[in-house]
Amino acid sequence: MKNSLCEARQSFLPKLPDCLKNLSKLIFEKGPSTTSHADSSEIEKLFPRLYGQPIVEAKNGDHLAFRPLRVGVVLSGGQAAGGHNVITGLFDALKSMDHDSELHGFLNGPSGIIDHKAVLLKAEKLESYRNQGGFDLIGAGRTKIETDEQLQKSLKTIKAMELDGLVIIGGDDSNTNAAVLAEYFKTEGCDTQVIGVPKTIDGDLKNEHIEVSFGFDTATKTYSEALGNIARDCLSAKKYTHFVKLMGRSASHIALECALKVHPNVTLISEEVLEKQMTLADITTYVADTVQKRSELGKDYGIILIPEGLIEFIPEVKQLISELNEQLAKSDTPALSPASQQAFNNLPENIQKQLLLDRDPHGNVQVSHINTESLVAEMVKKELKERKFEGRFSPVLHFFGYEGRAGLPSNFDATYTYALGHVAALLINHGYSGYMAAVQNLKAPSEEWVVKGIPITSMLNMEVRKGKKKPVIKKALVELDSAGFKTFKSNREAWAEGDHYEYPGPIQFFGDSSLTDTHPLTM
Amino acid sequence: MKNSLCEARQSFLPKLPDCLKNLSKLIFEKGPSTTSHADSSEIEKLFPRLYGQPIVEAKNGDHLAFRPLRVGVVLSGGQAAGGHNVITGLFDALKSMDHDSELHGFLNGPSGIIDHKAVLLKAEKLESYRNQGGFDLIGAGRTKIETDEQLQKSLKTIKAMELDGLVIIGGDDSNTNAAVLAEYFKTEGCDTQVIGVPKTIDGDLKNEHIEVSFGFDTATKTYSEALGNIARDCLSAKKYTHFVKLMGRSASHIALECALKVHPNVTLISEEVLEKQMTLADITTYVADTVQKRSELGKDYGIILIPEGLIEFIPEVKQLISELNEQLAKSDTPALSPASQQAFNNLPENIQKQLLLDRDPHGNVQVSHINTESLVAEMVKKELKERKFEGRFSPVLHFFGYEGRAGLPSNFDATYTYALGHVAALLINHGYSGYMAAVQNLKAPSEEWVVKGIPITSMLNMEVRKGKKKPVIKKALVELDSAGFKTFKSNREAWAEGDHYEYPGPIQFFGDSSLTDTHPLTM
Repeated sequence: MKNSLCEARQSFLPKLPDCLKNLSKLIFEKGPSTTSHADSSEIEKLFPRLYGQPIVEAKNGDHLAFRPLRVGVVLSGGQAAGGHNVITGLFDALKSMDHDSELHGFLNGPSGIIDHKAVLLKAEKLESYRNQGGFDLIGAGRTKIETDEQLQKSLKTIKAMELDGLVIIGGDDSNTNAAVLAEYFKTEGCDTQVIGVPKTIDGDLKNEHIEVSFGFDTATKTYSEALGNIARDCLSAKKYTHFVKLMGRSASHIALECALKVHPNVTLISEEVLEKQMTLADITTYVADTVQKRSELGKDYGIILIPEGLIEFIPEVKQLISELNEQLAKSDTPALSPASQQAFNNLPENIQKQLLLDRDPHGNVQVSHINTESLVAEMVKKELKERKFEGRFSPVLHFFGYEGRAGLPSNFDATYTYALGHVAALLINHGYSGYMAAVQNLKAPSEEWVVKGIPITSMLNMEVRKGKKKPVIKKALVELDSAGFKTFKSNREAWAEGDHYEYPGPIQFFGDSSLTDTHPLTM
Repeated sequence: MKNSLCEARQSFLPKLPDCLKNLSKLIFEKGPSTTSHADSSEIEKLFPRLYGQPIVEAKNGDHLAFRPLRVGVVLSGGQAAGGHNVITGLFDALKSMDHDSELHGFLNGPSGIIDHKAVLLKAEKLESYRNQGGFDLIGAGRTKIETDEQLQKSLKTIKAMELDGLVIIGGDDSNTNAAVLAEYFKTEGCDTQVIGVPKTIDGDLKNEHIEVSFGFDTATKTYSEALGNIARDCLSAKKYTHFVKLMGRSASHIALECALKVHPNVTLISEEVLEKQMTLADITTYVADTVQKRSELGKDYGIILIPEGLIEFIPEVKQLISELNEQLAKSDTPALSPASQQAFNNLPENIQKQLLLDRDPHGNVQVSHINTESLVAEMVKKELKERKFEGRFSPVLHFFGYEGRAGLPSNFDATYTYALGHVAALLINHGYSGYMAAVQNLKAPSEEWVVKGIPITSMLNMEVRKGKKKPVIKKALVELDSAGFKTFKSNREAWAEGDHYEYPGPIQFFGDSSLTDTHPLTM
């Protein structure tokens, strides 16, 4: 914290939306009651007390009496830039409404609720976390509050702490969990309100109400800085083909956003692979064709983006993994279907080995551990050899992930999260539970942003998870008819053959707002 | 180039040293004649025409008549941020001295000289390369001008182009090559003067005259941004041990600079490994001890830096590689000495395989391809298992290299290189050849920088390369009695056990100069 850029960022003042500038003049206007994203009768049955709540929007109105609130906050799941600003935004809003309010931070994620591990957050300590990256103020964790015992212990903690509100900062699963807790508390006659805040660098918590999750902007800007540098290195050295795997779970939002920012030669989009039912051979052919065409143009170099989730979207690999998971649980020598055996035989040896040996405690293949960047590079190498390719093909492998999650939040993420913290505080003050804090109109200057509360049940549908039907927020995949994908699609042929690289450079915090206050292109 | 940060950087005006502000009032004051770094009689024999030239320093003095100069410039070796500014600095100085001067860029490195591939550089084109990263204006390459044929062809090109001067922007080898060419041209009665410019991110071209090579500042700042982000991720997630290999060839300058910037838990310094004759087992014990001690303190996470060259400094691995190189040239089943066989047996299987199979066209082990970060992580894992370590050890591997070479140069690198370009132009105008452009007093504001020309022969000594004694500039390794290493050494115990991470964040180009105008800590 002694670093001067970190220190300088502490004094950045996020510009709040106009409607949040005078909290005593804010009311929430109720819209019509909601249903669920799908499976409404099942969702209604699971959430009888929450189901149907209206969307609410912040407006100017008559003064509402404030009272001192006791609120708990928890960080759930992987880091995303801006988490600390949700907390400072929450804190500042609570304190500005009533100075006797208290904010308690649960330690190291939801397990802090179950085990009653929390600290009172004080103004002085928070100062040094303003606009900072990471989740280290209170830590984060991936524990889910699911079992009856976990729910009971959580209720006990919440009651012991006499909390008026609980704010869960997390991704789709954690926000679903917020609804489960909200419903459970109501069922148990506990008045504690639960509010979710949409966090994930992956960008897959997105729908008609949530324009983007926080952390996506900083992560994609951080990756694009490195990608742009590598593209420029490529163009100068003219001898390597860089294969870059990008973090982002199943969805390809991060890959698409980075493609629009940097214009690499190839970007694989998992959702398109699935839509077109592309085999690994199809993907290999596509990449090899590009390498070959560029080589014929005298360009034995390039940059190729691969989304982390790709492998799960390739039909025959998906089938192979599913058979392996089933078989390996029983025996070390799996009996595969002829199609899967063929798919397996086509894989490079190191990937075969990884599939057979690298298994989680349940015997499942660890899909996220598979070096997809190496897989694609190896397959292309083999293909080029078979084609008797005479150019130079020197692949260099990269994986960008952790370096994009905990950096200093961009102005966009710092401002967005500070506003989200305010919204969470206000929803609690105004008596709402089972809501997600939402800020909309994000392409406009922050003063014009719109503040809403969205009932989490309205985003739920039923999906099978680990063999059981569960209520979940539908994960947003890249839509092939979205403006972002269309822009990519109409340019990718030019980007493949030419060198249309852009070099976004490092995130800037000072200077002209056209450089400091940009937002995601796919938003 | 349409990106707005790149555009904004085009208008950055590097502040020149005071002595470069009025080129018509600049003279070079000659110091006493020089010898060579060592082996003076051999160096004198090889460079009879250059040997003994004096160091020269720019001072205020009487007007010197300018004449139109024809100068060629070439980028040699790997990218380093600031290369384009050497060229714009050279261009601006040449044009300000005489507007009829011409600057020609050789394409794709020294092969452009041999094959006479060059372009006339024009003001308009250069505008969009000001303060930009990469070497893509004219490209770079690694060809060395060594053989008689190459020397003759180069001379032919230089004569055909009627060049007054040739500026070689490169590392230690390329600057040695500049002296070889300078001597050769003089021997052949050709008046073309040759000037070298010290470039390399590795930081190993450094001596009493050269405080730092350009590109080192930007590279280490770029790596430190990512390292700081990962450190903060570490501290938030509390579950991974990150092993990060850093580019930098043999020397550990980059690792040391990043250690001073980020305070990771462990940084291996190759030069210390050699000095202490540490075995792979010693290194493993040291890292495993740290992991274990941290685990006992409840910290099952950490960040460990590994310099790219480490493996060559571990005595028994060095011996093993040397035996493998000798044996594998003869047979696929090497007969190793008992000690080397033991060293081989101790290596993880994937590294064994890499040593046996991944060989260059001469049959040599490709040391730079070895995944040292994986080697160290695997060895530590094995060691912890033998110790029956009960904590959590989840290694995550990284290699940072290409993303740090071609990014937008920091203010320091942009200013330093722009000044170096001026110095090269002046040395040519004032009739010097076989000199390296030097700018000193770099810790002071740029106005106070001191401008010199250093005879390259004064930096030379004789070393065995590929079995032959050759004149070379001694590569600067990390000195264990340097202030930088001492600071590291006196802090590393605290950094190992505590979490003293610093988060430097992305390079800033605008705002307070305490953030934008910093220089390397090890300088």
